[in-house]
Amino acid sequence: MRLRNKPGAEQTIADHPQYILTDASDWKGCWEERFAKKQPIHIEVGSGKGQFVVGMAKANPDINYIGIELQTNAIISILEKQIEEKLPNLQLLLVNGADLSDYFAEGEVDQIYLNFSDPWPKKRHIKRRLTYKTFLATYETIARPGAELHFKTDNRGLFEYSLASLSQYGMVLKQVWLDLHESSYEGNVLTEYEEKFSKKGQPIYRLEAEFTGKK
Amino acid sequence: MRLRNKPGAEQTIADHPQYILTDASDWKGCWEERFAKKQPIHIEVGSGKGQFVVGMAKANPDINYIGIELQTNAIISILEKQIEEKLPNLQLLLVNGADLSDYFAEGEVDQIYLNFSDPWPKKRHIKRRLTYKTFLATYETIARPGAELHFKTDNRGLFEYSLASLSQYGMVLKQVWLDLHESSYEGNVLTEYEEKFSKKGQPIYRLEAEFTGKK
Repeated sequence: MRLRNKPGAEQTIADHPQYILTDASDWKGCWEERFAKKQPIHIEVGSGKGQFVVGMAKANPDINYIGIELQTNAIISILEKQIEEKLPNLQLLLVNGADLSDYFAEGEVDQIYLNFSDPWPKKRHIKRRLTYKTFLATYETIARPGAELHFKTDNRGLFEYSLASLSQYGMVLKQVWLDLHESSYEGNVLTEYEEKFSKKGQPIYRLEAEFTGKK
Repeated sequence: MRLRNKPGAEQTIADHPQYILTDASDWKGCWEERFAKKQPIHIEVGSGKGQFVVGMAKANPDINYIGIELQTNAIISILEKQIEEKLPNLQLLLVNGADLSDYFAEGEVDQIYLNFSDPWPKKRHIKRRLTYKTFLATYETIARPGAELHFKTDNRGLFEYSLASLSQYGMVLKQVWLDLHESSYEGNVLTEYEEKFSKKGQPIYRLEAEFTGKK
């Protein structure tokens, strides 16, 4: 997603350290202190403009959410929403998702969301896909035993790849949806992209998979 | 698939014991003796009228195929083709697929195909789906270690269920196709049903999964 530079974004971020971190290594292992209540922590890797993570935080006040995004021009939109909403169970992290174990302690995270991640369709870019085994290993390190990864995408190639990649890594598929919007799944919170895309009638794929420690 | 009764089917079957068995328990562990050459044995569970298994046998002379079907009025069509073709690497078995371990010894089978199996969409019929765990256990018993199950269907619900069922059983997904006819997969042999169905433009799903002994 390419976004226009938002003037003043850096300053807005610097002005709201209670909502957003740009260097989180100091908070490794201490994330629960940044929230009003001690409750499960769910993270979204690649939050874009944040419609999903903000929607989830509103819908589920008993869960603490962390939206992670590497683009300043995307995460600033989430921050602007949060400045308005002041949700006590939402934190933002502006860093590269690849280094998650620098920012989270072992087992600190209860659930991980990936939504409409970059498909990196070329074979030579396979290692950049967020469901490639090295990423899965990082997620597993920071996730508590038995934690789940919830993933949705409209990209058929990425979903095909991810089903096999997760399985070969040793994860167990709990449930799979091959046309989420035609299913009986309730409580789906749409991302911006999903909202736009699903109107075209193409299927949205979704899976829930569990880390088993059997890698 | 409901088929008309073919008059004389029973007699045709009785007349061709070199191609088709109706009680295979005597051949348990000795299937290779029924073929011209000793080579890997692939079975299809639910062969219908046999377009797939006959096509595979023709395309792959270095593999021995066994088409298994429980409906006389379906398997008779395969037998009629075989009486004409006399393929040395094709055998037929008219039995209920549920009892496969009565007819095959442990590790006797090298690969298993399921094509367009009955979806049994109602939850109370889940145990009848050919990718339910009890069936997977039977397949694993008769398959050699590391054998693969290759499955295709047009039924979204059955495919969603099967991905999760195989994974939860302990199988590893090697590859998944969510629109086989739009993919670069080569060498696809169509079933009768697939040929008819794919013209409507709906996707054909396919997977290859490995038994790992980790159940």
